[in-house]
Order: sequence, then structure tokens, then C-alpha cells
Amino acid sequence: MPHKLIRIERVENDRPGRPVMIAVAGDSAAGKTTLTAGLAEALGPDRVTTICVDDYHRYDRRERKGLPFTALHPDCNYVEIIEQHLQLLATGRPILKPVYDHHTGELTRPELVEPHEFVIVEGLLPLHTRLTRACFDISIYLDPPEEVRRQWKVKRDTEKRGYQTEAVLAELERREPESAEFIRPQRAFADIVVRFAPIAGRHDPPGTPLSAELLLRPTMNHPDLSRVLAGNEQRAIHLKLTRDADGRPVDTLHIHGYVPREESLVVEKAIWERLGVDAGEVPLTLGNLGGGVRSEPLAITQLLLLSHLLDPNR
Amino acid sequence: MPHKLIRIERVENDRPGRPVMIAVAGDSAAGKTTLTAGLAEALGPDRVTTICVDDYHRYDRRERKGLPFTALHPDCNYVEIIEQHLQLLATGRPILKPVYDHHTGELTRPELVEPHEFVIVEGLLPLHTRLTRACFDISIYLDPPEEVRRQWKVKRDTEKRGYQTEAVLAELERREPESAEFIRPQRAFADIVVRFAPIAGRHDPPGTPLSAELLLRPTMNHPDLSRVLAGNEQRAIHLKLTRDADGRPVDTLHIHGYVPREESLVVEKAIWERLGVDAGEVPLTLGNLGGGVRSEPLAITQLLLLSHLLDPNR
Repeated sequence: MPHKLIRIERVENDRPGRPVMIAVAGDSAAGKTTLTAGLAEALGPDRVTTICVDDYHRYDRRERKGLPFTALHPDCNYVEIIEQHLQLLATGRPILKPVYDHHTGELTRPELVEPHEFVIVEGLLPLHTRLTRACFDISIYLDPPEEVRRQWKVKRDTEKRGYQTEAVLAELERREPESAEFIRPQRAFADIVVRFAPIAGRHDPPGTPLSAELLLRPTMNHPDLSRVLAGNEQRAIHLKLTRDADGRPVDTLHIHGYVPREESLVVEKAIWERLGVDAGEVPLTLGNLGGGVRSEPLAITQLLLLSHLLDPNR
Repeated sequence: MPHKLIRIERVENDRPGRPVMIAVAGDSAAGKTTLTAGLAEALGPDRVTTICVDDYHRYDRRERKGLPFTALHPDCNYVEIIEQHLQLLATGRPILKPVYDHHTGELTRPELVEPHEFVIVEGLLPLHTRLTRACFDISIYLDPPEEVRRQWKVKRDTEKRGYQTEAVLAELERREPESAEFIRPQRAFADIVVRFAPIAGRHDPPGTPLSAELLLRPTMNHPDLSRVLAGNEQRAIHLKLTRDADGRPVDTLHIHGYVPREESLVVEKAIWERLGVDAGEVPLTLGNLGGGVRSEPLAITQLLLLSHLLDPNR
């Protein structure tokens, strides 16, 4: 039971030098990099190491063309090496990480990665095995509705990776069975499930930021939000006890996108002040969607994650 | 003391599945690949994994041009990752090994390496640190006289790597201080030091194969050669108790290159038969210098190493 061994070793070695490990899992274009980038920037580059487990592709793009599965399939990735490298990072050791170039689709020269105080591991399959899951202190799954993710993927892959819209849609189609079989099951193992989506039944004007719904599973200690939320009129953000699709009890935190920015800022400031750790002003890097566009629900989500990461009693 | 930990773990895990680890260290063009290839071929590709630690260069050839040291310098190599990967292999785990292309001088896509029954690790620095040394069951250092190595290096680098003679000689010159500081000190840590050289004072005709001198250090159990050598008239091969340059007692085994092939074959057969392990005929792959040229001293050296590797009481 190597997952037990790594859990034991990590607890035994719970000392300065052992990093806080954060998983950010989700399907392609689910918003992993956007969420992660704001967190990493707020914590500061000297304190954060970010890696992407999609770099562990076993085949390059050309080789994959002849194979009966897509890049989402565990057989298309060095899963055993992902497990090994996460164990090494989780116990404070460096790794020589493979590199997949998303632009050319080639596997290139590996790079040395040394774990800082926080290690954020994003990608398609960080929560795929029991052993990888044992390596994390906090795990997050990004779960936008499929139609939202489709828009995001078309936009990113055509604008940043040089694909045609039809090719992106065809690829989404081709990947769907493997998304269902390997990516989405990871949702069940996340401590926090984040869903950016429009609110059903509302007819907000175009340009209204998406709202966020955060499932907070009792698999970890969440900060006491009742005190933070006490002073607000329950419009920008509210907490609700619910059951997840599998029947497990969860807290669901709603952060509304249609709320005026001033109201969101009150909540952001309250959370930020409770962090206590020489906090200063709420970092402006939070909520950044890129291209100068802001989302207060994203900012509040990132703030809550920060409050987890910086909590000494985590 | 991680070198103690790995020694303990390797003894604790001394079970089927944990490979026999062999280091073949030595300077550039000292004959590492020639020695190793014959061993690997005799054992069979299904039983042997061969890696080269020169793949762990930190900089490619272009980057090294601007640096104040050569590829021999530990700072030019991911020594910590070499240590990590050797520990993983020594405890039966796979690695994702970096790849240095000697032809283009570029670092390319890494490759998965799974340890078979025997793992041969050759290269410039496999015995450089206490932790790497703790990973090996048998360590060999190749120690040809510098003038012999120079000839070999010029021949190989001009014929196989596309260099000009002058460039190779200049590079040897440039590397000499680092050879002295980092490569040659590894000789002291080898269980067996192999020196292919002409015999001083003899005037053999051109084309006479080089003789071999093997220092057998009492740091490991060597096979009892007295019985093997009892039946031969001490011409092809003889053993002598001596002191190494540092004063430590060693056995020195001389294998003469000028001896007619028939006499060498008698000794080879005797060693081979003592292996006992379903031995059959002496493998013809032993003694192969490439290009159809044979060396009986090389064959006998490889046979002795094989007898070590296959000895169940090793």
C-alpha cells in the first residue's frame, strides 16, 4: 500500500521544507491555469512551484495520431512516473520533469523543478490514482458545465494554439468517452469542486460575469465562513447545506456574478483580513481572467483557496 | 546520511525484483561502452538495462560554450537527479531518464527505463558521490594509460561523432584539469580497476592486442581464481598480490595480449565452466572490439565480470 506509506512519510516529515501540495484537476480548458495563475501570483513566485501533469504524455502529437486513444487516457501518460514525481515533490525533493510543448505537440528537453513552500499541480489526471491523491494537502476539481467549457476550449485553442474551430469541436467529440471514464470521476476525490456557470433561470445582460458555486467537502477543515458572511446581506455570497449527487453532505457556497463589484469587495476584504498573515490590501492579481477582464466570483474563490493555503491549522 | 538509508533499504529489499547494479566508470573514450556492450550481449537484452549517466548533462553543447567548465564537471550535470534515479533503479523502480544526443549535442525527449535483473550504469561520474556509490553491487573503473585513451578518443570522435582531430586534442587539453579533479578520483572507489595497455619493456609486433591488468580490491568477494589458474602454465593469465598506489593490498590479475589465442581459450573455457549456470559455450560476443576485431584479454575480463554477476553468493 504505497499510498499509505507516502501518507505516513508526509505526516512524519511535517516540518519546514515539506511543501503544501495542491491539486487543480479538470478537463481541458476547464479554467485550471486561470485559477492557478492568480493563486501563484498572490503567493509570489518565490513561494510557489507550479507544474502541469499533462507534461507526462507518453506519446507526442504525431505518435498519438496512430493510437486508439486520446491524450486523456491514462495509457497515454506516464502515470507511474507522475506518482513517483509527486511523491518526490511531496517529500521535498527535486524532480527532472518532462516537458510537452503544447504549441508544437512535441516532447522536449526535461527541466529541473525544485519544490517551494507551495506546489500547485494542475492538469488532466492529478487525482487519477490513490497514490497521486495521497500526495496532496488540498485538491480542487474544476467543473464548469460542458457548454461553458466548450466555448472556453474553442476560444483558447483557436486563439492560442493555432487550431481551427471545427478541429477543436471534433476533438472534443472524440475525447468525450475518455472524459467520462477518466477525467470526471476525479471530481469525487476533490476537497473543493468549483463550478463557474450562469445561474439557471436568470436572464442577466450579456457581459455579466459567471457566478461560482463551490462544493466544500468535509474531507478537510474549511475556514469558518459563517463569521465572514455574517456581516453581508447574503447577496454576493451565501452558504447552503446540501447533498452532492452521490448523497454525501456538502456545504455549497454560492458567489454571484451579477452582484455589483462594491458588494463583492466587502466580502473579499473580510476574507482577506481574516487571513491575518501580514495581509495588507487584497491582491489585484486575484480575479484576473486575462485581457484586462475581471471576475469577482473568481477573486473570491481564489481568496478562499488562499485562506486554506495560508491557514497554519490546515 | 541518505547513503546509509539506501544501503539499508537495498539489503532489506534483497529479493527477486531488486536488480544487481553495476557501475562502469571512466574518462571519455576509456572503453566503457565496449566493455559494457559485450557484457550486456552475453547476459541477454531481456535481463539487462544499460544507462549512461552522461545523459544527465545540465546544459547542451551550445550552452556549454559560454560556461567556464566542461561536461566533466559535476556542476555541468544534474548530480542530485543521478543520485535519485540510481536509488530508484536500485530499489527496482522505473525512471524517466533524460537523453543527451551525442551527435547533435542537444538534450531531447526523455525515455522510460525499467530496471531488469541487471542494471549497468556507465559514464563519466557514476561513482562521484557517496550516495551514488551506495547504489552499486559492483563497481568498475576503466583506467587505460592516457596515451592509449587519447588514441581511442581521437579515433572515435573523428569517425563516429564528426569532429576534427585538432578539435578533439584541444578538448582533451581543456578537460584535463577536470579529469584530474573529478573523473580519476573515482578509481579509488572501484571494486575492480581495468587497465588495457601494452606491456612495458616488450616489443611486440604491431597488431598485438593490448594486455589487461585487473586490480581486484578486497572490497568485494572475488571468485577463487587459484583453481581456475591452477591448470594453466601462468602465461595467458596470472595473479599477483601487490599494493595499490595508495598502499592498500590488492590482487592484480594480468592477462597477456601476446599469448596465442588457443591458450587464452583454455582459460576462458575454464572460467566459463565454473559459472555453472547452464553455461553452454563461451559466448562469441565476448572480446568484441567492433569491426570484427577480437581481444582475448577483453574476453577474459568480461568473463570474470560475468562470473561476478552470475555468482549467487555475490
